[in-house]
Amino acid sequence: MADKAAADYLKGHHDDFRNRYFEFLRIPSQSALTAHRADMARAAEWVAAALRAAGCPTAEIVPTEGHPVVYGEWLVGKDRPTALVYGHYDVQPADPVDLWETAPFEPTVRNGRIYARGAADDKRLYCTIMALEAVARTAGKPACNLKFMFEGEEEIGSPSLPGFLREHRGRLACDVLLSADGSMFDFERPSLTLAYKGIASCQIDVRGARVDLHSGGHGGGVANPLHALATILASMHDADGRISVAGFYSDVKPITAAEKADIASVPFDEEAYRRDLQVPALFGEVGYTTLERQWARPTLEVNGMWGGFQGDGSKTVLPREAHAKITCRLVADQDPDRILDLIEAHLRSHTPPGVTATLHRFPGKAKPYMMPRDLPEVKIAADVLEDIYGVAPLYTRAGGTLPVTQMVQDTLGVWTVGLAPKGENVHAPNEFMLEKDLERGARVFADFWQAYGAGR
Amino acid sequence: MADKAAADYLKGHHDDFRNRYFEFLRIPSQSALTAHRADMARAAEWVAAALRAAGCPTAEIVPTEGHPVVYGEWLVGKDRPTALVYGHYDVQPADPVDLWETAPFEPTVRNGRIYARGAADDKRLYCTIMALEAVARTAGKPACNLKFMFEGEEEIGSPSLPGFLREHRGRLACDVLLSADGSMFDFERPSLTLAYKGIASCQIDVRGARVDLHSGGHGGGVANPLHALATILASMHDADGRISVAGFYSDVKPITAAEKADIASVPFDEEAYRRDLQVPALFGEVGYTTLERQWARPTLEVNGMWGGFQGDGSKTVLPREAHAKITCRLVADQDPDRILDLIEAHLRSHTPPGVTATLHRFPGKAKPYMMPRDLPEVKIAADVLEDIYGVAPLYTRAGGTLPVTQMVQDTLGVWTVGLAPKGENVHAPNEFMLEKDLERGARVFADFWQAYGAGR
Repeated sequence: MADKAAADYLKGHHDDFRNRYFEFLRIPSQSALTAHRADMARAAEWVAAALRAAGCPTAEIVPTEGHPVVYGEWLVGKDRPTALVYGHYDVQPADPVDLWETAPFEPTVRNGRIYARGAADDKRLYCTIMALEAVARTAGKPACNLKFMFEGEEEIGSPSLPGFLREHRGRLACDVLLSADGSMFDFERPSLTLAYKGIASCQIDVRGARVDLHSGGHGGGVANPLHALATILASMHDADGRISVAGFYSDVKPITAAEKADIASVPFDEEAYRRDLQVPALFGEVGYTTLERQWARPTLEVNGMWGGFQGDGSKTVLPREAHAKITCRLVADQDPDRILDLIEAHLRSHTPPGVTATLHRFPGKAKPYMMPRDLPEVKIAADVLEDIYGVAPLYTRAGGTLPVTQMVQDTLGVWTVGLAPKGENVHAPNEFMLEKDLERGARVFADFWQAYGAGR
Repeated sequence: MADKAAADYLKGHHDDFRNRYFEFLRIPSQSALTAHRADMARAAEWVAAALRAAGCPTAEIVPTEGHPVVYGEWLVGKDRPTALVYGHYDVQPADPVDLWETAPFEPTVRNGRIYARGAADDKRLYCTIMALEAVARTAGKPACNLKFMFEGEEEIGSPSLPGFLREHRGRLACDVLLSADGSMFDFERPSLTLAYKGIASCQIDVRGARVDLHSGGHGGGVANPLHALATILASMHDADGRISVAGFYSDVKPITAAEKADIASVPFDEEAYRRDLQVPALFGEVGYTTLERQWARPTLEVNGMWGGFQGDGSKTVLPREAHAKITCRLVADQDPDRILDLIEAHLRSHTPPGVTATLHRFPGKAKPYMMPRDLPEVKIAADVLEDIYGVAPLYTRAGGTLPVTQMVQDTLGVWTVGLAPKGENVHAPNEFMLEKDLERGARVFADFWQAYGAGR
């Protein structure tokens, strides 16, 4: 099954590919930061040019209301199946920059690892472009029809993608979506991810007096927005780590015994995980294992919280406002809009006297996703991964969200098979992927295309 | 009683005094910010030079472990009483600067008000220098002995002042401390403040995993320091606004019926206060009026709180740490060190699983202070204030802290009479005092010295 010629080509051009990859990593394409709009456009241009250079007959930049989509096509025959390849060229903000050992947008190799913001999530999409070039330069063309769709808004919840999918539905028609996002279970242990959580995100803004007040003169007289925000946030979980927002669990499907067994079969050392994170204890919803909580139970996490004085020393201020950012990760059959409705109702009933609290909804949202385990494309992927990694893949879930999965299911009616190599410290300082996974990741895609085109 | 010559001198030199005052206000002497150390030294030099220029025979800069004290003396006779004049040349940080209508360190007059950081708190100490110059240029010398002590650490809790008072105890010997800090009850309603709250300040640091984590991948698996901090802070008050830290109220003296009557006699319109602050309702410890809460009950206020992502939009991070700054305002007979012990014990018993929380104590602290109402100096001050304002002063308390009061009581054995004019928006953006209060404030000091020296 292995495409030896493509593999040899990839090996022979390692340094060249790595240099080009570094060019890509140097572009600070942080979609959440409005100051980086020009970098987003630059990253899109870079990807389109790379696709064309790899041999893709068409590669264009399709504008959206937000950041553009890069779209390319290589159609080889109506009798062949069609794979739509997905990835995203935007990255998380690099903040807090001072915790990076080397600059986030100056890729650095240390101990066989490539460190950079986006080195894994998700500029590894470059693996698919490498695969295409290898196939083009050896076999002349891919064995199946290929379509490439690389968005620039994944890290802000893909607000433009649903419209893009609907508008270009005919052109995007395919039999499977191959994702270069997501991740293997471990560096040497491949996996196929059957479920992704949905997401809903919002900000809570608490306002008190019209100006910051002297906490001596006014303290005790008026409510402190920081106290109010702390009270509101604390009211969202009980002491057992269970979410206290009324109705939050109403649409959650219980984990079946078979699913529990699947999750338990995944090698996961809770104590090693605790040690690695250097926390005194793991903690979460009581009654579930750590993997069950992360993979199969919904969460409500505060991602940021602030108000008042943050400088050195103390300042005796009673601030006028306080803020928190929240994301919820959802499992079937939770709906993101309904979840935000519930949080808003919770806010109305849990805001202490003397302040006002409002909910601001962020556009990024996704429904939860769960794929059947017996899909033909899952079988092909399992064979390719076992061949390349030398070990059969695990069947896992993800605590994170791949919004494209549910959107593609809704508009194109196909499932998503994730083939991307593992990254580490994604969304955190010192993100990296293995240098060897550039080549290994590309081989996975090349071999899948060949097997898929050959009807296996 | 009024010193007409001094009053005429002050009136005749209004513009000159204002221009010199503006020079003082332009020095950004923010004691809490280490970057402004040179400005602190510059402010001290400015004050010493101003004292000498006003006629004070000695004015020197006395170094401390922190910011220096400016000290001056004009002794006129052993048979005369001695007043020690107090003020502080440091100011609160101007942050958040973008909420100021005009630059905080570029004084601006609008509608008869002088706007600048420190225009009131406490660069109005310049009133005492104006008074000295007026007395020197008219009567030739003051009627009582005068000592001037202007510190540079009031806004950070006066850490060096107790040592300074102890070390220079003999030299500082006096019969009363006259404070140019504190404030009148209203612009046209003078007051004498009988009590100041004490203060204790600290920071809570909550730590979780060794790095920021992806809130999708890790959410539900490990404790979120932001949730833990919110839970800790929320646990410090009950729903009735009462402080829930065990033992917090143990040393609090109940408010007597006579004290309640005193407080009730102060004209204070709760609804007008609410409207002015633009809050939906006033809020605080149930069972007390707003003034009772602000003046006679202790408080625990969070002054700042932060962790995780604060930028535009959303970032799916589970941050590694969270922080909060707290100050407590204390009433008799609470002790600041004991209060911090109680908060630390509360932290130990209320930190949720999966994180560590530590308490950092800030050096700035003060015991609560309460002065007898029948003091001779209080009587003189009442007469002077009634003469100049045209209305008898109220007897009030302050929710804020004037650490010097209790320290001076402890080391020099004298009480503090506050004579400073009212300011507004102190510790907040757009701080101001009335332009006319430069002159009126100076007259109050000049007249007090004359009456005090004449033995009235």
